[in-house]
Amino acid sequence: MDASLPDSLRLSDERVREIAQWGTPIYVLDEAIIRAKIAQYRDALALSWNSTRLGYASKANSTSAVLKIAASEGCWIDVASEGEFRAALLAGIDPAQCYAHGNNKSRVELEFALAQGIGMIVADSFEEISLLASLGSKTPLLLRLAPGVDPKTHGKISTGQDDTKFGFNVSDGSGRRAVEACRDAGLNLIGVHCHVGSQLLDPTAQITGGEVIAQFGQEVFPAFGFELQLVNVGGGLGVRHSGESPLAIQEYCQRVADAIRAVVSDQVILMHEPGRSLVAEAGVTLYSVGNVKDVPSRSHGTRRYVAVDGGLADNPRPALYGAKYELALTPSEPRKLAETQASTISGRHCETDKLFEDVPLPGCVRAGDWVQVFGTGAYNSSMASNYNRYPRPATVLIRLDGSVSEIQRAETWEQVLGREALPEDLV
Amino acid sequence: MDASLPDSLRLSDERVREIAQWGTPIYVLDEAIIRAKIAQYRDALALSWNSTRLGYASKANSTSAVLKIAASEGCWIDVASEGEFRAALLAGIDPAQCYAHGNNKSRVELEFALAQGIGMIVADSFEEISLLASLGSKTPLLLRLAPGVDPKTHGKISTGQDDTKFGFNVSDGSGRRAVEACRDAGLNLIGVHCHVGSQLLDPTAQITGGEVIAQFGQEVFPAFGFELQLVNVGGGLGVRHSGESPLAIQEYCQRVADAIRAVVSDQVILMHEPGRSLVAEAGVTLYSVGNVKDVPSRSHGTRRYVAVDGGLADNPRPALYGAKYELALTPSEPRKLAETQASTISGRHCETDKLFEDVPLPGCVRAGDWVQVFGTGAYNSSMASNYNRYPRPATVLIRLDGSVSEIQRAETWEQVLGREALPEDLV
Repeated sequence: MDASLPDSLRLSDERVREIAQWGTPIYVLDEAIIRAKIAQYRDALALSWNSTRLGYASKANSTSAVLKIAASEGCWIDVASEGEFRAALLAGIDPAQCYAHGNNKSRVELEFALAQGIGMIVADSFEEISLLASLGSKTPLLLRLAPGVDPKTHGKISTGQDDTKFGFNVSDGSGRRAVEACRDAGLNLIGVHCHVGSQLLDPTAQITGGEVIAQFGQEVFPAFGFELQLVNVGGGLGVRHSGESPLAIQEYCQRVADAIRAVVSDQVILMHEPGRSLVAEAGVTLYSVGNVKDVPSRSHGTRRYVAVDGGLADNPRPALYGAKYELALTPSEPRKLAETQASTISGRHCETDKLFEDVPLPGCVRAGDWVQVFGTGAYNSSMASNYNRYPRPATVLIRLDGSVSEIQRAETWEQVLGREALPEDLV
Repeated sequence: MDASLPDSLRLSDERVREIAQWGTPIYVLDEAIIRAKIAQYRDALALSWNSTRLGYASKANSTSAVLKIAASEGCWIDVASEGEFRAALLAGIDPAQCYAHGNNKSRVELEFALAQGIGMIVADSFEEISLLASLGSKTPLLLRLAPGVDPKTHGKISTGQDDTKFGFNVSDGSGRRAVEACRDAGLNLIGVHCHVGSQLLDPTAQITGGEVIAQFGQEVFPAFGFELQLVNVGGGLGVRHSGESPLAIQEYCQRVADAIRAVVSDQVILMHEPGRSLVAEAGVTLYSVGNVKDVPSRSHGTRRYVAVDGGLADNPRPALYGAKYELALTPSEPRKLAETQASTISGRHCETDKLFEDVPLPGCVRAGDWVQVFGTGAYNSSMASNYNRYPRPATVLIRLDGSVSEIQRAETWEQVLGREALPEDLV
């Protein structure tokens, strides 16, 4: 990465005051950091292997502008639904540069994907192989495999062990039967895929998973007349939210490649599909402070609650995963900040909604100040809800020239209430 | 309740096949059950006390038609945001029959509420008292108090202990200072409020909370020239999802009333504001089965995964709270169902998304069958997201005459993608 470019987005106080004029809460992304992170991953991957392909897992942030940036940097767009595929098409991305994931793709979704000319499909079940056969698909196909490795991460985001809803098990013979079913169905099987989990801080599971599926493809594909052309080891490299130390991308790619090199030739395409690690740190969320309360607490003496104008609807990750974030205060007008004290940032939702517990914040925080939360570029806007009927925030993009463009508009009241239907005779 | 009316919605196979024609996933509510549950609560409350008021906590399900039903049954509508208030106005509900909650109401929200003529406001912070004073509010005001009781429920939905973002602490003198601030600001303070937590199965905390705030109002209001006219003990009565046994509403209301009777005259209005207990069991969600997988599992021998066409985007409660649900299978065409076996219903989202773990389901389940999940009338549609860009489901209402009306339309692609903005110069 360009040494002058920060590793993660941190807005200056001036920038906070400028962007807060768009209204808060608001998501902010930085184009230069996204491009640099993609380039860094792409280059690390290319250094580690002869023939490579980088995917971008669009579920992390499927704002069309982000997809366009990823595509223009050479990423294939991993879409896990028809909606994510449509977001890519809306961005003008070549459908042949997209590929479809999903453990339960419907016939309608597959028909749409094939009709649009999607570049690749990752099949996840025997039902899907039958569906693809019935649709006469000749689209390049990967098999999603469960390699039977158990990563050390949060239980809700680990997916590569044997006991998973995803893919075909290698250990119980399902994978082999799936290759046979692809041959019988006349499908264009070209490769294998696995994804062992998300927010991984230790690459052992991914390395082992990659080895297992490469070995599988090398052995089983020829037995059914297929040539192994692509090995996709998924994504999952962790990012720093608060205290985590993920492996450097260069070392990570090298270790995965070294393990797979022992199994397959480097003429086979090696593919990674990161999501979070490309966009999480390129984003922050800005909130306004509404009130500050110091309340008695058995464990803390006094606990300070700082209420902001957002919460679990715009960032469900603390409630879902116990995710932690770092943040910083910008005073509403320039003033000397007091020493920090442990504070709990509370959301505005009608529920406990402790967004961020016991984070350091200047003691002089008050209503009207702004809080920026770092590392929210992934799994925030894409998981946002309208809980309590709050409109979802806008996303703005800091452009390469420093200007600011809106890339996802804030929801209007018409949009928030646009699906209601009141039966005429309801009294 | 009418003895002929079931306590919770269970669709017959015929009804499932009829409603599935609207498309799945789909939320289904039953008008008769909602009305009966409200009537039951309203009557139990009226039996327990002289002057009563029932609120409906609209965050549980703020579909406009549901709000209209609640209002027509005599409920005041508890709105925790401008959006929930707007949903009530859209339903044609008298704004004077609505009241505003929220731990961080903005000036804009309060201005809107006052301009529309909202019936009551529950103040939550000193900043809010100042805001109301600056807006010259004469609207009847309650103070939200933290009575310092710690309910036995899930940590994320317990809110009445001292250490909470909500309201004014009784124990540290904040409550008293808030009454003083209301007097100094010339506000129209009429009552007190507390809400000790949600999904409560033991009423002790609510009883104690009610006693504490009634005592507080009785003692402190006159000292500052106010008369205590209303005691709102919040909501929180639990419902059955899987195995829970909440107290009967009649006994619950009686026990709360008995405790408060020792403190204040029954000329004071006693108010409850249930949400979940009025609508959760009046709703089910219908899903279609996409595929069935039997995979090796260390703990289970073999685990069966049944993939449905919904997941954490339409029901985030299993992922958020570990919530459990009961469900039933409807075969796609009439057939004899095999014996049940433990199955895991997996969602379609690109994440572990185990919706319902180890629930009994007939062994013959297959693609094309339908699954109905019971008790999803609350905190499902109101917390739904577009994760993976899936459109949010429709809600249909089974009317008193047995007909089916759509009350919230499924999202269209235009709606799912309607907020994207692609800067022209982005390449």
